[in-house]
Amino acid sequence: MKRTIWPHPADPRAIQILDQRRLPHEVVIADLLSCDDAVRAIRDMAVRGAPLIGATAAYGVWFACLEAQSSPDPAAYFKSALARLRESRPTAVNLFTVIDRQLKALDPVSDFSQKAALALETAAAVVEEDVEICRRIGGHGLELIKTIAGKKQGQSVNILTHCNAGRLACVEWGTATAPIYLAHQEGLPVHVWVDETRPRNQGANLTAWELGEAGIPHTVIVDNAGGHLMQHGKVDMVIVGTDRTTRTGDVANKIGTYLKALAAHDNGVPFYVALPSTTIDWKIRDGFKEIPIEERNPDEVRHAEGWSEGARRSVLLTPATSRACNHGFDVTPARLITGLITERGVCEASEAGLTGLFGDNAHES
Amino acid sequence: MKRTIWPHPADPRAIQILDQRRLPHEVVIADLLSCDDAVRAIRDMAVRGAPLIGATAAYGVWFACLEAQSSPDPAAYFKSALARLRESRPTAVNLFTVIDRQLKALDPVSDFSQKAALALETAAAVVEEDVEICRRIGGHGLELIKTIAGKKQGQSVNILTHCNAGRLACVEWGTATAPIYLAHQEGLPVHVWVDETRPRNQGANLTAWELGEAGIPHTVIVDNAGGHLMQHGKVDMVIVGTDRTTRTGDVANKIGTYLKALAAHDNGVPFYVALPSTTIDWKIRDGFKEIPIEERNPDEVRHAEGWSEGARRSVLLTPATSRACNHGFDVTPARLITGLITERGVCEASEAGLTGLFGDNAHES
Repeated sequence: MKRTIWPHPADPRAIQILDQRRLPHEVVIADLLSCDDAVRAIRDMAVRGAPLIGATAAYGVWFACLEAQSSPDPAAYFKSALARLRESRPTAVNLFTVIDRQLKALDPVSDFSQKAALALETAAAVVEEDVEICRRIGGHGLELIKTIAGKKQGQSVNILTHCNAGRLACVEWGTATAPIYLAHQEGLPVHVWVDETRPRNQGANLTAWELGEAGIPHTVIVDNAGGHLMQHGKVDMVIVGTDRTTRTGDVANKIGTYLKALAAHDNGVPFYVALPSTTIDWKIRDGFKEIPIEERNPDEVRHAEGWSEGARRSVLLTPATSRACNHGFDVTPARLITGLITERGVCEASEAGLTGLFGDNAHES
Repeated sequence: MKRTIWPHPADPRAIQILDQRRLPHEVVIADLLSCDDAVRAIRDMAVRGAPLIGATAAYGVWFACLEAQSSPDPAAYFKSALARLRESRPTAVNLFTVIDRQLKALDPVSDFSQKAALALETAAAVVEEDVEICRRIGGHGLELIKTIAGKKQGQSVNILTHCNAGRLACVEWGTATAPIYLAHQEGLPVHVWVDETRPRNQGANLTAWELGEAGIPHTVIVDNAGGHLMQHGKVDMVIVGTDRTTRTGDVANKIGTYLKALAAHDNGVPFYVALPSTTIDWKIRDGFKEIPIEERNPDEVRHAEGWSEGARRSVLLTPATSRACNHGFDVTPARLITGLITERGVCEASEAGLTGLFGDNAHES
């Protein structure tokens, strides 16, 4: 499986990413050459998804170390570069976790040349750990799919997902998609309902593309359709990702996730959230009061972007004078979540469930 | 307030409609000159919304009478024209109700010239009754808004609506919007959250346009956003329309309505459905089993239509090879509905509620 971020094959001071803004119609590889390139890649969503944001930020810290070396005031430069990195996206906790991890790793050395070497090492470790974590999430989620497949007598297991918590949100495998990729590799029949996920259509653009690349049967639906499909028994399970999970199991994920969780609950459809433990924010108990919800540019709502006559175009949907508003995420309360699929296994969406699996990390709070 | 369908000012054998497919960026008036023009207007959604479909169908029957006169076999022609009319949209019960009403009105006379005169009279009556019914729905809904306004101490009453059950869905006033128009006329501060309503974006295209025309404050949101807004107390009530209501109070409305009803229920937000009693199908008890749900062209999901560089364009959202599916409606169970706002008053969404107001009609089942 291809990766989404990797060292530049020719330039030892650069990395490359798959620029996801042109998908599904163009595959564009972009070079990142500076910390501000990393900031822009995160802010402008050339990369997105909590784990991939984390990996990109890890390389961003490396860039900041490289750049600090040629600055008249390296420490001040480094500090200001990291501040820009921290502000690139407000909701993804991975961003902060990875930056803090880098700072801890760099702390023992004071020379920015040495810091750069350590930062590159840490970034590579972040990347490899993400791959391994996603593979483990996949393994645990696979067991859930197998159980449902056992009851379906050879019929496809229908899995609904929202937004993109796929390999394009990570380095490889994805979180919500990892169980699906593994099931497909094992020959289990799976079919995925792909919520288009307005306003940015990450489902229609990205999830559909990556499932298509992997040859996995899928059907794109509007975000309005999931409830109807569940009412009619056409969804066997829901698996979504998360940008931030509280220690009590509340989940902040792409706007609209909460509506699908309500529908799953109302129809007895299991609703799972796949997450690397790096997205757990152990300091937060109440998802509603404590998770800041990013408000993005309302023009994303007023427009839709797609392909027309060989070019990517933005079309205006609303009257020119109508206001719009654009909250990026919502919070799904733990009570609506059947289970959390983590790299250490599946647990209840609760403090007991999470500390049962991650008691050691929980003490960090 | 302007109307959406009216007699052609110059041609006594024609009517005119506002062709809603070019809104909100172009106001196009279209002539309907034949029964098949009416069929196409309904099928291709130049007109939409249960009451306006009914009004258009009423004129369609008139056209069929006019055309039958010059047919070698008038009765056969009339029968086949009406069959095409009946098949123009599968879910809207008004279509069938109005055609049946026309047939009853035409039954006493056998000459198609006389039938045409009666059909025109009936069509005009259907139109005027719709205006009066919407005005009454507005009056009853206004009382609900007033009650909420009384608790908000001068702050805007925030009303969420889905799709377009506005004046563009009717002849005038609208159903879900009638209370809003009346509240605005009385000087009550109202603000409307307009669900864009994918895939056809009737909210972003039509509801936003007609509210803007009337000077009513509104904000367009993606269909994913309503749950989040309700969780944060930003929605005081929901008012939607319906394409078909069962005698037990289940409501078939635009796909995604059910998700908003779940969110309203979960957050204690009153969820009202505004309906003329013509949309009640007294023969149906179970909305899930008995209401056929129209499956429309999947290309509507694969694309979005909007305005770009001075032209209406369709942009492709999904990979070219991805499948899509497109159910037009979902069914909201009565248990999630706070009340039904009808031309005779507000009632519980139940058989008791509906027969309490419409006992006389219920006996027609």
